[in-house]
Amino acid sequence: MRSLAGDVIRQAFFQSSGQKLHKRLYQAISSAILAGNLPPSARMPPTRDLAEELELSRNTVLRVYEQLQAEGYVSSLTGSGTFVTHSVLDNLDARSITGMDETASEDPPALSARCLDLLEHASASPQQWGAFLPGVPDVVNFPHRVLKKFYDRQTRQALPQHLSYDSTGGADSLKLALTDYLRTARGVRCSPDQILITEGIHQALDLVTRSLCNPGDIAWTEEPGYWGIKNILRMNAVEPVPIAVDEQGLIAERRQAPAPKLLFVTPSHQYPLGSVMSLGRRQALLSLARETRSWIVEDDYDSEFRFSGQPVPSLQGLEENSPVIYVGTFSKTLYPALRLGYVVLPKAIATPLKKMHSELYRGGHLQVQAALAEFIGEGYYAAHIRKMRQLYGRRRQMLVALITRLLGQDYLGRYNSNAGLHLILQLPENCDDAAVAQQANQQGLLVRPLSRYFMGSASDRGLLMGFAHMQERELESAFLRLAAIIKEQEKKPRC
Amino acid sequence: MRSLAGDVIRQAFFQSSGQKLHKRLYQAISSAILAGNLPPSARMPPTRDLAEELELSRNTVLRVYEQLQAEGYVSSLTGSGTFVTHSVLDNLDARSITGMDETASEDPPALSARCLDLLEHASASPQQWGAFLPGVPDVVNFPHRVLKKFYDRQTRQALPQHLSYDSTGGADSLKLALTDYLRTARGVRCSPDQILITEGIHQALDLVTRSLCNPGDIAWTEEPGYWGIKNILRMNAVEPVPIAVDEQGLIAERRQAPAPKLLFVTPSHQYPLGSVMSLGRRQALLSLARETRSWIVEDDYDSEFRFSGQPVPSLQGLEENSPVIYVGTFSKTLYPALRLGYVVLPKAIATPLKKMHSELYRGGHLQVQAALAEFIGEGYYAAHIRKMRQLYGRRRQMLVALITRLLGQDYLGRYNSNAGLHLILQLPENCDDAAVAQQANQQGLLVRPLSRYFMGSASDRGLLMGFAHMQERELESAFLRLAAIIKEQEKKPRC
Repeated sequence: MRSLAGDVIRQAFFQSSGQKLHKRLYQAISSAILAGNLPPSARMPPTRDLAEELELSRNTVLRVYEQLQAEGYVSSLTGSGTFVTHSVLDNLDARSITGMDETASEDPPALSARCLDLLEHASASPQQWGAFLPGVPDVVNFPHRVLKKFYDRQTRQALPQHLSYDSTGGADSLKLALTDYLRTARGVRCSPDQILITEGIHQALDLVTRSLCNPGDIAWTEEPGYWGIKNILRMNAVEPVPIAVDEQGLIAERRQAPAPKLLFVTPSHQYPLGSVMSLGRRQALLSLARETRSWIVEDDYDSEFRFSGQPVPSLQGLEENSPVIYVGTFSKTLYPALRLGYVVLPKAIATPLKKMHSELYRGGHLQVQAALAEFIGEGYYAAHIRKMRQLYGRRRQMLVALITRLLGQDYLGRYNSNAGLHLILQLPENCDDAAVAQQANQQGLLVRPLSRYFMGSASDRGLLMGFAHMQERELESAFLRLAAIIKEQEKKPRC
Repeated sequence: MRSLAGDVIRQAFFQSSGQKLHKRLYQAISSAILAGNLPPSARMPPTRDLAEELELSRNTVLRVYEQLQAEGYVSSLTGSGTFVTHSVLDNLDARSITGMDETASEDPPALSARCLDLLEHASASPQQWGAFLPGVPDVVNFPHRVLKKFYDRQTRQALPQHLSYDSTGGADSLKLALTDYLRTARGVRCSPDQILITEGIHQALDLVTRSLCNPGDIAWTEEPGYWGIKNILRMNAVEPVPIAVDEQGLIAERRQAPAPKLLFVTPSHQYPLGSVMSLGRRQALLSLARETRSWIVEDDYDSEFRFSGQPVPSLQGLEENSPVIYVGTFSKTLYPALRLGYVVLPKAIATPLKKMHSELYRGGHLQVQAALAEFIGEGYYAAHIRKMRQLYGRRRQMLVALITRLLGQDYLGRYNSNAGLHLILQLPENCDDAAVAQQANQQGLLVRPLSRYFMGSASDRGLLMGFAHMQERELESAFLRLAAIIKEQEKKPRC
């Protein structure tokens, strides 16, 4: 049976060339969606029909549909077929505006290939506050007044050099306070001059990638892993290579050439699955990095929040002079809008990377950095973390109890450890987590589908659920609504 | 006559290949300096000897030495010869640490080519506050208390969504306030949804370059021009092509292919020379951009400060739907440490570029943005600018009087207009402005040599002198010291 959508796909498919057939098909469909030729709500041709029409095996078509679904391009409603989703609309806007605007006749210059690539992989949530949004702390319980007291003192002094640009990589007092804190709390070995203060983790990752990788280099990323690092790598023409993760963290084995320039890991609390990297794996990773002369980038984004058992010291501090670039942030321990993070740079690259930072991004914000240094130095930082650790631990416990009671033990992610600001709600293997998430999002429940964190096909389906920022009452009522959505979805033959 | 330095250069020169001879020689010497093979204070071989040894024309060698001198690699002391300067030490540090550190035996992975390239072109001043530093406003006279009042109100409200990440391109209230301000003060035509709030101008330039240029594309930059844009272009594998500037601004003529993707200009107040782009040139530039389907990036960094004559409305607002991306900053009108800038995006690219921004950099700082919106909305912004305009105008006048009195009329830059936060002190044509600046810097006078703002050989020699942030008393005593340095330098045969 021929359909309009089928025609669009067929045309795009035959215009493409090179590559393997499933890649061509994937690109034909995804670009047709992005270009608006397959509009939101358009029904996709049944896999059997499309396979016949394009003379492909049905498995190839199925595999491509699955990937498109995992990435949020399409979603399937059991019994009704597969449809282009509305969530790609964000990307479409630009192009449809281009098409409709009064300037359209002038045919404005195209977006760059890297821009289109990034838009295709866009993953930041369009909403950044709401029920179950992963990765945000409780910003309301933060002692704003105390930090403000220190900040006010800084603004009263109004040192002109604190109000100008900064080319020193951050306030010295903050570097000093962080050195102490990171040594005692995270086992990080460094001196203050190895610390560079950044605008959050993204800037640190961008700086490190640009400084240490040439275009065409490869970098290992965890599979599943954080979307941000993959975006930043692609933007800098570095190829992310997904490396599987299990209950002991990244499975680091020497692979064939080319060796990666960078190895991105989250050893304390794997993002998003939650496992802790075992000591054996840590040692293996360090020796692999030395062997391949790569740098490990340790993203220690929320390690402060471990609710039971031993805290896990950093990979960076495991050995003297380890080949590790340690990256941290105040977004999880204080609040994201501060936009303050830090990198601990190995001595050999500290000076050039600081210079890179000053040339590329220019620094500033020295008053708030100096205030934060006092906040840390006088013990408020550690006290706030202790308090939040208890609070988040209780909230996590409550969410675990709700999941177990309303859905069952099987719905707790396999690798969840008792830590962090989010957990994984596991869904049955062939469940369309993107469709569940989309329905939930429409009701203001900002869970995110686990499959989106995979580069290849997802080996697990589930939902990332942030709990740290949610008041207990809200947590319960929101979860009741989410559970209802999940149960309804499960009634359908293909969840 | 053979010398050790000559041997080092000869070896590096013969190892290089491709390219024109002067480029090979330039690269051989500069990389030998950066690698530490020609250490600071090393005497360079006389041009005549080196020319003979390498079988090059003496003119080629002279030209390369001049460029190296302009870029601060070497400086010449009359009668004694040419020496590797100490000011490149910043870049050297990293390598010498690499060489000396206890981890040296492990031979850490190299820096990327783009990193080395940027370090070679590094231009940010290592000090960001002091006498004559160009580009900083009077941060002390800013009404910190008023802005703080609005900020305190925001922090008391403590809206959780203002404390989380931002994926909307900035606080809506600030976009609205800016739309009004930019329309009335700068003649910019836009709606609030075209505005994106950024971390200063560098982030805006980086975003625009990445979104609109593919690697290998070219972009026009003003010659002389701002170092930051050239760094950002190179970092993103886009080639800056220098286009000359005269008293009417950029000399925009249709040149041979390939057409530039972006045209970077500072029409209101050319950076660093100070000329204003004439109406004819503006119209020519707009039609050229339409013809080549390029975007113009208008960097309107300090246009608020024009002390006499008509204010110059923006290029962006000259035509409806102009192909102009307008970039501005609060670093000059308020203070740099705020790290707040903005882009006005043409409608056709507003949505994708905002998405790019959220994916790559993540937003935040919504409380201070909301406070700033009130500060603008209640008239404090315009009032502060008016007040500073008078103050800076007086300080400029005082500096001009000092220059005229102590050095003479000839020392006022040819294109200086009565505007901005800095002016050009013109030096005789063959004067080594880098050497003068270096001597001045050592005495805490943070002038910058004009020749460093050229990509090719400098057609003018002079000093960039910031005056806006200097108290009148300091201005006079600092200038007396600078004038003495200049006069002493002029006694030498080659200034």
